[in-house]
This record gives sequence, C-alpha cells and structure tokens, in this order.
Amino acid sequence: MAAARKIIIDTDPGQDDAAAILLALASPDEIDVLGITAVAGNVPLEMTKRNARIVCELAGRTDMRVFAGCDKPLQRPLVTAEHVHGKTGLDGPDLPEPTMPLQEKHAVDFLVETLRAHPEKTVTLCTLGPLTNVAMAFEKAPDIIERVQEIVMMGGGYFEGGNITPSAEFNIYVDPEAAKLVFGSGIPIVMMPLDVTHQLLCLKDRVDRIDGLGNPAAKAMAEMLRFYERFDVEKYGSDGGPLHDPAVTAYLLKPELFSGRECNVEIEVNSELTLGETVIDWWRVTDRKPNALVIGKADAQGFFDLLTERLGRF
Amino acid sequence: MAAARKIIIDTDPGQDDAAAILLALASPDEIDVLGITAVAGNVPLEMTKRNARIVCELAGRTDMRVFAGCDKPLQRPLVTAEHVHGKTGLDGPDLPEPTMPLQEKHAVDFLVETLRAHPEKTVTLCTLGPLTNVAMAFEKAPDIIERVQEIVMMGGGYFEGGNITPSAEFNIYVDPEAAKLVFGSGIPIVMMPLDVTHQLLCLKDRVDRIDGLGNPAAKAMAEMLRFYERFDVEKYGSDGGPLHDPAVTAYLLKPELFSGRECNVEIEVNSELTLGETVIDWWRVTDRKPNALVIGKADAQGFFDLLTERLGRF
Amino acid sequence: MAAARKIIIDTDPGQDDAAAILLALASPDEIDVLGITAVAGNVPLEMTKRNARIVCELAGRTDMRVFAGCDKPLQRPLVTAEHVHGKTGLDGPDLPEPTMPLQEKHAVDFLVETLRAHPEKTVTLCTLGPLTNVAMAFEKAPDIIERVQEIVMMGGGYFEGGNITPSAEFNIYVDPEAAKLVFGSGIPIVMMPLDVTHQLLCLKDRVDRIDGLGNPAAKAMAEMLRFYERFDVEKYGSDGGPLHDPAVTAYLLKPELFSGRECNVEIEVNSELTLGETVIDWWRVTDRKPNALVIGKADAQGFFDLLTERLGRF
Amino acid sequence: MAAARKIIIDTDPGQDDAAAILLALASPDEIDVLGITAVAGNVPLEMTKRNARIVCELAGRTDMRVFAGCDKPLQRPLVTAEHVHGKTGLDGPDLPEPTMPLQEKHAVDFLVETLRAHPEKTVTLCTLGPLTNVAMAFEKAPDIIERVQEIVMMGGGYFEGGNITPSAEFNIYVDPEAAKLVFGSGIPIVMMPLDVTHQLLCLKDRVDRIDGLGNPAAKAMAEMLRFYERFDVEKYGSDGGPLHDPAVTAYLLKPELFSGRECNVEIEVNSELTLGETVIDWWRVTDRKPNALVIGKADAQGFFDLLTERLGRF
Repeated sequence: MAAARKIIIDTDPGQDDAAAILLALASPDEIDVLGITAVAGNVPLEMTKRNARIVCELAGRTDMRVFAGCDKPLQRPLVTAEHVHGKTGLDGPDLPEPTMPLQEKHAVDFLVETLRAHPEKTVTLCTLGPLTNVAMAFEKAPDIIERVQEIVMMGGGYFEGGNITPSAEFNIYVDPEAAKLVFGSGIPIVMMPLDVTHQLLCLKDRVDRIDGLGNPAAKAMAEMLRFYERFDVEKYGSDGGPLHDPAVTAYLLKPELFSGRECNVEIEVNSELTLGETVIDWWRVTDRKPNALVIGKADAQGFFDLLTERLGRF
Repeated sequence: MAAARKIIIDTDPGQDDAAAILLALASPDEIDVLGITAVAGNVPLEMTKRNARIVCELAGRTDMRVFAGCDKPLQRPLVTAEHVHGKTGLDGPDLPEPTMPLQEKHAVDFLVETLRAHPEKTVTLCTLGPLTNVAMAFEKAPDIIERVQEIVMMGGGYFEGGNITPSAEFNIYVDPEAAKLVFGSGIPIVMMPLDVTHQLLCLKDRVDRIDGLGNPAAKAMAEMLRFYERFDVEKYGSDGGPLHDPAVTAYLLKPELFSGRECNVEIEVNSELTLGETVIDWWRVTDRKPNALVIGKADAQGFFDLLTERLGRF
Repeated sequence: MAAARKIIIDTDPGQDDAAAILLALASPDEIDVLGITAVAGNVPLEMTKRNARIVCELAGRTDMRVFAGCDKPLQRPLVTAEHVHGKTGLDGPDLPEPTMPLQEKHAVDFLVETLRAHPEKTVTLCTLGPLTNVAMAFEKAPDIIERVQEIVMMGGGYFEGGNITPSAEFNIYVDPEAAKLVFGSGIPIVMMPLDVTHQLLCLKDRVDRIDGLGNPAAKAMAEMLRFYERFDVEKYGSDGGPLHDPAVTAYLLKPELFSGRECNVEIEVNSELTLGETVIDWWRVTDRKPNALVIGKADAQGFFDLLTERLGRF
Repeated sequence: MAAARKIIIDTDPGQDDAAAILLALASPDEIDVLGITAVAGNVPLEMTKRNARIVCELAGRTDMRVFAGCDKPLQRPLVTAEHVHGKTGLDGPDLPEPTMPLQEKHAVDFLVETLRAHPEKTVTLCTLGPLTNVAMAFEKAPDIIERVQEIVMMGGGYFEGGNITPSAEFNIYVDPEAAKLVFGSGIPIVMMPLDVTHQLLCLKDRVDRIDGLGNPAAKAMAEMLRFYERFDVEKYGSDGGPLHDPAVTAYLLKPELFSGRECNVEIEVNSELTLGETVIDWWRVTDRKPNALVIGKADAQGFFDLLTERLGRF
C-alpha cells in the first residue's frame, strides 16, 4: 500500500473548508496532514485561526498543528463573505471555543520550513482560500517553489463566471496578486473552479444522509451545510447550494471522480472591473502555455458518497 | 396591420451578416431597411462595403443604399477574422462583383442625418459588427442619441466566455471603446451574446433545407453556411457551427423565439488580458443598473424555421 | 517673399487662445488662416464657438469662417477650467456678443474637406485645446492624415509636471484618447509643453505694454491677460501667469525663438492616477522612436516683443 | 547630549549606498545602526548581501549584523542596473571578498523582531533601494507598522522625471507594489527624490577632496564615485554624476541642509507606461492628504562638506 500523501491545508474556514478538512482528517491512510495554515478570507484571521482548531477538535485531532498566517491580502484591503458564511464563518451548529493551542510560528514560516524539511516534491499544498500565505512564502523563500509537489486549489471560474463579482470567484478576487504569483510559479496546479463546484449541490437528501450518520462531527457538518447553502439557493434558485472546498480533498482521494483539461490560466490584476478573473483558455484560442489542470466535471453522486462514507468514520 | 419597423443595418459581412440581411430584406411587411452601413470587422472595409452590396443584389434589392463607414476601430488597429470567414468574408459560393453603386456619403453622416430626419424613437439600429460607425455618429452628433428607438446587436458573451480571446467576443473586442460608449448611451439595447448564438447551430439538415429551397439567394446562403461553420465545428467539436448575426433580425420578426434578462453590462477597455469582455451582471451581484436586455435562450428550431421560410420567399 | 503658410486653428478660447488667434490674424503675410474650429475644453462648446467669433471680430475679421466641432471628448465626460478662465472663457474685458455667423458645417467635416481640397502637406493644424476635433477627423477620414503638413500644438509637460493633475496638462488630460491618436499618427508634431509656456510669464510691464498700444484689440487682450493670470500667480507664487497658447502661433512666425529636442512622446490613457500624462523621453532612456519636436526653451522677451509688435498692427 | 538615533539600513549596494552606509557608520554619536538588511536592486541579492559586508569592513565594523532579504520584487521579475553600477555594484576600487559572516535570519524577520523588541516609534528605517524587504515585513507582521518612528528613503522624482524610464526612478520602479504599500502605511516618510539628488553632483574637486583624505575607506569611496558617475555624466552632460543615497543618512545628521514640502505621493502600479512613477502633488492640485515630506532642495556644498568630514574620521 502506498504511503499517505503529505499535504498542508491552507484555509479560511468557512463551512465548506470545514468539510474539506474533515474529509482529509477522516482519511489518514491516504492523506497525511502536516499542518493547517489559516488565512484571512471568508472571515477575518481572528476567526479562521479559531475555526481551523474547532474543526480539528470536531475530528478528534487536538494534536494537529494550526498556524495563523496573513491577516490581509498582499496588496489590498481584506474583503470577507459573512453574507454567505455568517459572522463566525462556521455559523449553523452550536460549537464550543477551541481548547487546543494555536502554534506560535507564523504560517508563512511553517510553509517555508516544512517544504525545506521534506524531500523535494513530496509535499502538496491544498488551498481553500485566498492564496496570500502561499504567495508570501514563495516571495520570502523562492527556493521552496520547486520543492512543492502540487497545488490543488479551490478557486476561479470560467463558464460559470464569478460569484463575488460577475467576473471573479471569491478566493481569487480577494488576493489576485497572490493568485497571479501562484499561477506563474511553474508548480503543477489542479484547479477546482466554480464550473465544477456548482455541480456539487447540497441537495436535501444528501445533507440528510450526513446528518443521519449520527456522530457529532457529521451532525455539526450537516448543520453547517444547512446554514451555508441558504445563500446560494436563494441566489441561483437551485435545489441546493454548491459545495466548493471539499472538491480539493476529494480529488486527492478519488481523482477519478473528476475530469478536466490542461489550460492556460491568467489572473486579471489590472482592471477594477474584471479584477480577480481567472482567464481560462479552455478552447485554446491563445498561444499561452497550459499551467493548470482545470477541472470541468465531477461525479456529484460519487463525491457525496465519498464524503458521507468518510464522515461516517468519525 | 402595423407599419414596418424602420431600421438601419450596420454590418461587416461575413456570411452570418449576409443571413441577417437577407432575413430582413425578405420581410418587407415587418422591416423597412432605411440603409445599410458597412464597417471594418470580420474583413476590411474594402470587402465589407462590397459584400453588403453583393447581399443586396442576391436579394434583388439593387435600390438599397449602402454606405461605407470607418475602416478601423476608434482607438485601436483593426483585427479581422479571415480564419473564420475566408479571405472575402463571403467565401463559399461563387458570387459576382456587385454592380449597384456605393453611396458617396460617409456612413456616419448617413446615420446622423437619418436619425435627425425621422421622428424621435422611430429608427432602430441593428448592429452586426464592431460598433465603430455607431459610436462615431454618437460622438460627432450627440443629439441623435436620444432619437434612437432601440439598438439590437450581436455581441459579447457571458457563460460562453469569448471566441477571439478566452474573455471576449469578436465584435466587442475589435472596438471595445465604441462598445463602451454604446452601452453607456442610455439607449434601450437588446444584446445577442454567444450564449444564445451558440444555441443556433447550423446542423446539416437545417442547411440542407435552405439549400433545397431552390432560389439563388437561398442556394448561395447554404453554400456560405457550409464554408463558414467548418471553423467552429472543428474548434468546439459540435455538430454544426453557431449562427450569430441573424438572431438580430429574427428578434425583430419574432421576439417570442427569445428570452433573456435585464442586466447591467459593462465593457472592459483597460486591461489587455480581458479586453473587450462584456461583464454581464446576470446574477445581480452588483448595484449597477441594468442597461440591456441580454438574451440567454433561443428556440433554435423556431429560428431556423423562420429563416428557411423567409429565404424561401426570394 | 514666401507665400503665407496655410493653417487651421483648432481652439477652445480661453484668453490665451485669444492671444494666439490674434497673433495669427495680425500676421497675414506669414499666416493664412483657412478657418477656425471650436472644440469643448476650457469652457463648453457653447462658449468656445461664441468666443472664437468674438476674437475674430476683435481682429476685424468678420469674414473668417468659424466651425463648431465636438462638444465633449471622444471617450470621456468633459472637464472644463472655469476656475482659470472665468465663466465665459474670455472673462476680463467687457465684450459684445458676436454678430458674425457660425458656419453650419461640423468642424470635423471642415477639417476633412479642407485637407482633401489642398495639395498634400500644405496645411498645418494649430491646436490650442483638447485634440477631439482633429482625432475624430482622422478617425472618420484616415486618408487625410498623410495630407497634414505639420501639427503645432500646445499641450503636455515633462519637467513641469501637470497643471490639472500632478501628472497631466489640461489639453491632453481632457481627451487623452484623442491625444494618443494624434501622437501615433506619424504626422510631424511640434509640441509646446508647460515646460516652455511656464517661461512665458505675463509680467506686469509686459501686459502694460500691450495695454499701451491703444487699439481696442490690444486693450481687450491686456484685460483678458490680467484676469487670466491671477489664478496661476496665486498658485505658483510667481510674478506673472504663464501664457500658453500663443507659443504655437509665435513658433510659426519666429521658430528661432524656441529650441527643443526630438523625443518620443507617449500618452497615458490606462491609469486614472496618471491619466493624460505626456511621457516624454527627454533623456532617451527608451528605444521608442521620436515622434515630436518637444520645445524646452523660449526667448521670453523675444516672444513678448513679437506679440506686442503684432498686436500693435490692429 | 541626545542618544544616538536607532536605525536599520535597508540597501542594495551600489556605490552610492556605500557612501550612505559609510556616512552612518562614521557617525556613531548620532546614529546607532541596529543592522543592515540587503535587498535585490542595483545588482542581485547575491551581490548586495556581499557588498553590504564589504562596506562594513571598509568601515572597520565587522561586528555589524548584515541580513539577506528578498531576492526579487513582490510581484515582478527583478530589474537591475549594472549599466550604472558595474557588474559587482561596487565597481571601481579593488576590494577583497568580505570575511565577516552573513546572518542566518531572513531580513524580513530581523525587521519584524527588531521593531517588536524596541519601544514604539524609536526605530527609523533608512531605505536606499527597492522597498521589498520593508513591504514584506509589513505584510507579514502588520503590528510593526505603527512601531516605526520614521522612514527616510531615497526614491522617486517629480520635476526631474525618472531615470530608469521617462516617468520612474529606479528604486520605486523595481518594486512599485512595495512602494505603494509603504506610502499607504501612514508612517511618517521623508523622501529624497531625484529632484534633490540631482543637485548633489560629484564634481571633480569634491571627489578629489575625499580621495585626499588618505584613509582606505575614503580612498575606496573616491574610486567608487569616479566609476559610478561616468554613466550619468555621459547621459545628462553635466559636470558630475548625482549622488543619491547618502542624502538619506545626511538628512539624519543635518536636516537643516534640506528643505521640502509635505505632499501627497501616490505610486503608479497599474500602467506599464508610467509604472513606478511617484505622483507628487507638489502644487496641491488634488484633495489627497499629504503622506510624505518631499525634499526639493539641498545645500550641495554643505552636504559634501559633511560627507568629507565624516569620511575623514575613518
């Protein structure tokens, strides 16, 4: 049996980040989470560094190391999304304050030191929020760039346009300069855009199945999802809100659930109107070289089966 | 019975422009074409001012007045699309040089004088190419802006992205400054984006039906369509190429074939990467006020039935 | 003796435009003014088309043809400068409404037809305001571009920075897209930037000399200058306000009063912060090819001697 | 007697950086250099981290702590200036490789820790190169921003335009995003632009006086200056090249040699054409609030007297 894949989760939880983290922590045979780095995004850093620990405690992993990173984007003021996630970011269930400690080290330094400490190309970065921490680590210590095995990220959109503006998805919009740096890094990237996450709808029976698992982590997750999806259901008029971030960790577990295309992706950083747009050359109308595997389709039922089965392990 | 609707067709033919013009000229009870203004776009002005007359002659309308307008965009060098339309723009059938005269007046002056000569809000502009002529007329004679009844245009895209770049549709990309001026004019706009024209596929049996009509205009049209669609069929892997421009004149004849949404549309003019993108606020995520009826769906079979029936009248 | 040089004056009067026009009209042996085209700039078109005729009447030239052109910039809303020029643009003296007629033709059409009617490269354009009229003529009728002999313009700045913003001079700022088009046209350009006009100060004795000439045109001119310079004297703390536009017509009469350098000049149109900046490569630090003779120094006393002598001829 | 002012020198030596550092190290009664942080700029980091130590050794200060920082700008590829400084950055004299150690800590961490370890507003940052290190420290640890006493920087230009492009001075151009972040930080800034450094010319007798001091540091300095100024002498046709960076440390010693104006300074980051321009509102034509004391005049002879006197102390 293959050794578990080593990853760092960079995250701004957020209910869907919670689902992504729980999915990883429920799968120790396949995924070895070296640490979790919190970044400002869906809610401010004060909340995300708290929420990351709450999720670890839900998973019974009080031994996990959680690091606080950047409290705002590289070049711009922070934009948050409490209108989606609620004030805490994990609105929905009633959750206690975390008791496990936050690490003292800055998330950027954890990223740098971890990538230097492991053999080249053996650590994967799973990014669920704005790419600020990762970009700053690359700026501060460019030698680590070639040590990254792969980046699997939730972010961007093409056929689905954006969600925070008509052109931009939230994670990329919040720190477009960080995203530009990451997409220009040369590291292999797997990108989960809105195009695919809008296929992963939290239909009522899917959430009910999770709720029915009975364990506290699954129960809290179900309550989070019910809170979280109300926004998109109202906005898009669909039967359930899209589930974004767990596509990242599901991809690590079962890549066969997803299909995509190697594309060039450029990030708009110059224009206010289209700021943070991920310009994906899906139809190859430019000469620009592919720099990401852009996922376009997912097996939604297979995805929810996987998520439910793993949450049942807690 | 209502009087025929007075329109000016601004066009850069193009095989699909030809279809749009023929559809209008075949429908004199409903549409009164006051004149046709040629602009540089799909092919250079030298060709479009020739092609517009060829199409009139195909329709037996050697009395139609055709005016040459701008030979390049307001602010930028001209980009053309011979890779789609062939060298002449009407590649496909064997067509004779036109014998009817080109008018001496500049297209911009025809637009200004015509809008001044008719009662307010009784003339509709149907634009099938870059918006250069229309924008320059508005710049030169701002008093005509409030005299326009409506603009029905082919241009832009949202869920379908772009065609000339990942973000931009050809007509808007070629002269984004002109488009910006038009979308900021306050005139009621009906916009046919790629989202709808990609539903109007030239399937083999649809083209064959046109061919089978037997008259020379329909026969030439069928040959044009067979040439024209080869590019998109190869690019998108679909069963037939999309037919863009006739959606504009079909809308005048049977608006019930189309449905859409009042949206705000802004034009990207500042960034090279996303130049010419039509930022359509389909989901109303901004506070910007709607300035166009963006068509999102078409009854494709109804559209081709209409086109075929009218081409049969020649 | 050489024939008088044929020019068209494009202008947005403004007191200093008035001085430039009077200097030209006082010099019929050297300068043959084919017509005057008014544009929106210092004050709205309603005023500039009136003011141009007032100045002609001051010069006793009721036969001069004055044409109204564009009432706003190509791409942007109009910005005016009543804080400098007063509400009419010619504030200062008490001047009667003009009685000579405004021509019916649009200024753009006069420019196009005049350049086509004269032999190639025998007509010079003297521009004293935003370049909207000239740019639109070039857009509408690109064939006239190569027929222009030279453009002598007041506009821009380098070592002196800007006046309407820290980076931009008023004429270029108001219509940067027009300026970009003109500087990219390939026509020989002589540019009078703030660097040189800030050397042409309306010191008290210089204005008094003009006043002392006694004729009504000179008297009105002196009163205009006294009104006009109050703004800059206060702003810059200098002994007299700079006189901008007459540098253009003085250059036609006595080029030896001026010296400069062939430079590349690019126009900033993309950034709000530096919009309308004339990026002059004075020190040749780029590879960009020179496209203008940028005047850097003037013989201020010689200039005022010339202006005074000519105004004395009325 | 007042305690010496505590500073950190952030630098990309460069001959003129060397002069600035030597001036500080020669003045221990007034200036307490807590450490020197090297950044990529005039030459790559590999050279600047070496050069900073060479200069310390010239000053006999092998105890000084030198830290290596960022090897390229936050968002852009590195641009260097070997055409000015020669391949090593300290071309001119024959200098041995440094033997004192480079500190292991990253310059950014030294900045963060030092500012946290000293009382609020007791440490001044003297920046002689691109602002990358400082900006990254502010991004990583925003709490230190309000702990900085003052930033005294060499950078930018207004009336003198730029040097690396027509609009931009080298230090700001290389990392405009870093500069934007620093100018937006709210920290009191004293800015030495080209406007003032172009007054500090290395005339022959001034360099000869330094050479004549006889000590090895002064001798090496004189040789550096002779190499360094050849570029600007040729470019500007002046009698001696401008001396940029020592204006920063001279200001700490004798602020009375300089005079300036509180201005708003904004950094152009959006346009390629004017990238890195410092838009200085010298004439207060905008409503933007002053954020820097922009130095406009220097007593050049007083400055060189000070420099010479202090270099004589080695």
